[in-house]
Amino acid sequence: MGQMIFITGGARSGKSNFAQQLAEKHKGKLLYIAPAEAEDDEMLRRVRLHQETRGERWHLLEEPLWLADKLLESAPGKGAILLDCVTLWISNLFFHFEEKQGPILAEVDRFFELAWQLDEPLYLVSNELGSGIVPDNPLARHFRDLAGIVNQRLAAAADDAWLVVAGLPLKLK
Amino acid sequence: MGQMIFITGGARSGKSNFAQQLAEKHKGKLLYIAPAEAEDDEMLRRVRLHQETRGERWHLLEEPLWLADKLLESAPGKGAILLDCVTLWISNLFFHFEEKQGPILAEVDRFFELAWQLDEPLYLVSNELGSGIVPDNPLARHFRDLAGIVNQRLAAAADDAWLVVAGLPLKLK
Amino acid sequence: MGQMIFITGGARSGKSNFAQQLAEKHKGKLLYIAPAEAEDDEMLRRVRLHQETRGERWHLLEEPLWLADKLLESAPGKGAILLDCVTLWISNLFFHFEEKQGPILAEVDRFFELAWQLDEPLYLVSNELGSGIVPDNPLARHFRDLAGIVNQRLAAAADDAWLVVAGLPLKLK
Repeated sequence: MGQMIFITGGARSGKSNFAQQLAEKHKGKLLYIAPAEAEDDEMLRRVRLHQETRGERWHLLEEPLWLADKLLESAPGKGAILLDCVTLWISNLFFHFEEKQGPILAEVDRFFELAWQLDEPLYLVSNELGSGIVPDNPLARHFRDLAGIVNQRLAAAADDAWLVVAGLPLKLK
Repeated sequence: MGQMIFITGGARSGKSNFAQQLAEKHKGKLLYIAPAEAEDDEMLRRVRLHQETRGERWHLLEEPLWLADKLLESAPGKGAILLDCVTLWISNLFFHFEEKQGPILAEVDRFFELAWQLDEPLYLVSNELGSGIVPDNPLARHFRDLAGIVNQRLAAAADDAWLVVAGLPLKLK
Repeated sequence: MGQMIFITGGARSGKSNFAQQLAEKHKGKLLYIAPAEAEDDEMLRRVRLHQETRGERWHLLEEPLWLADKLLESAPGKGAILLDCVTLWISNLFFHFEEKQGPILAEVDRFFELAWQLDEPLYLVSNELGSGIVPDNPLARHFRDLAGIVNQRLAAAADDAWLVVAGLPLKLK
């Protein structure tokens, strides 16, 4: 039975760094799951940059959509798993499933049911998107709602939850 | 003499649900005030959806602008009152009073002076709007300022105040 | 050896007011550094408004870019210094240095190295920009990243750090 630790914060709040430090306290192999789309240059640059700042203990898994399938193949058996970030994954699913909330949430649930069966703790990095002005764009509003719903679901299920602000963690749970 | 509890958070942060749970701890009638504009379909859908997730103890009052007048007519005398959300109400007043801060704040104060005289505790749900990038649109900046000023005023007057993040409450006061 | 206190929050969260109250606990001269551009009317109005709400103990220094140089000339020798806000200063540097992160961070570091040598405590007010929806505009994304990186740096170096929400402070550190 795994453990789930939820870490959220704004863009560049230091949430990834905080999550990495927590994960690195575990002995054994560390698996970093990046739900990156290879086509997105800016994102890929970020993932690579993140990879350089992580040490040799980290193994990188890049998969934009089917994290559940890849998780079973790649789970290290020992150590810890870090998914960075949930919001990017949700965004990929949002476009793949043409904004339909049902199949997106089903895929999220499938992933977390598998994750519970692993021995390794799972660190989830997510984003706060809902504290700015209401977006003009209905698609952006829709995505913002979905991301918030997923965050609530994950935080409710998590063993621990943190909000990171300016690199400093506030314990939510 | 009533009690005032202020609850803020981003969009889909779980703030409404948290506020409802607090209000439902009170015995007696529960009054839910939705400052909804019937013309806004998306909003109306949300209000109706919220209504379905609330139980039978809840009574709904829909009034876009004149909450103070309606509050006196509708106060249950026992139980609790939930206003969800302050930011939508402020937004309605903002358009009604053509962005003039003075009459908007006067109407807000009028409401809260009445609320203090009630026996029921008043739960106020509000929104965090100010933690995104500065909006290009001067009207959006102006509204964001107003919403922030109102939040400060209400939180200062409140007996308790909470920030909800990913469904989890942080005690502000 | 000075002391550094970092205070962040959204727009109109009450962060400036909270910082001023902390600074006013110190005896002696109080220096308020506003990194304002005189050309920006809205900003200038805000600075002047802020000035009216501050008392006579406050002295105002307006300098959009070269805070380090002006700090040495203007440090009161006793009392406290308030920089309000870091994000506006970073924004001025961002345009001055044509978005190049290296020279911006170098100028930030130069300022804080000088600040450490002062006797007065330095109160830094900064903005949360990263908790809204991802901006469409690459320049806005770039600035948001920079502002977040600077906030992390300052909060890490600070003796105390606070997040202000609806006028109420949450202790980060």
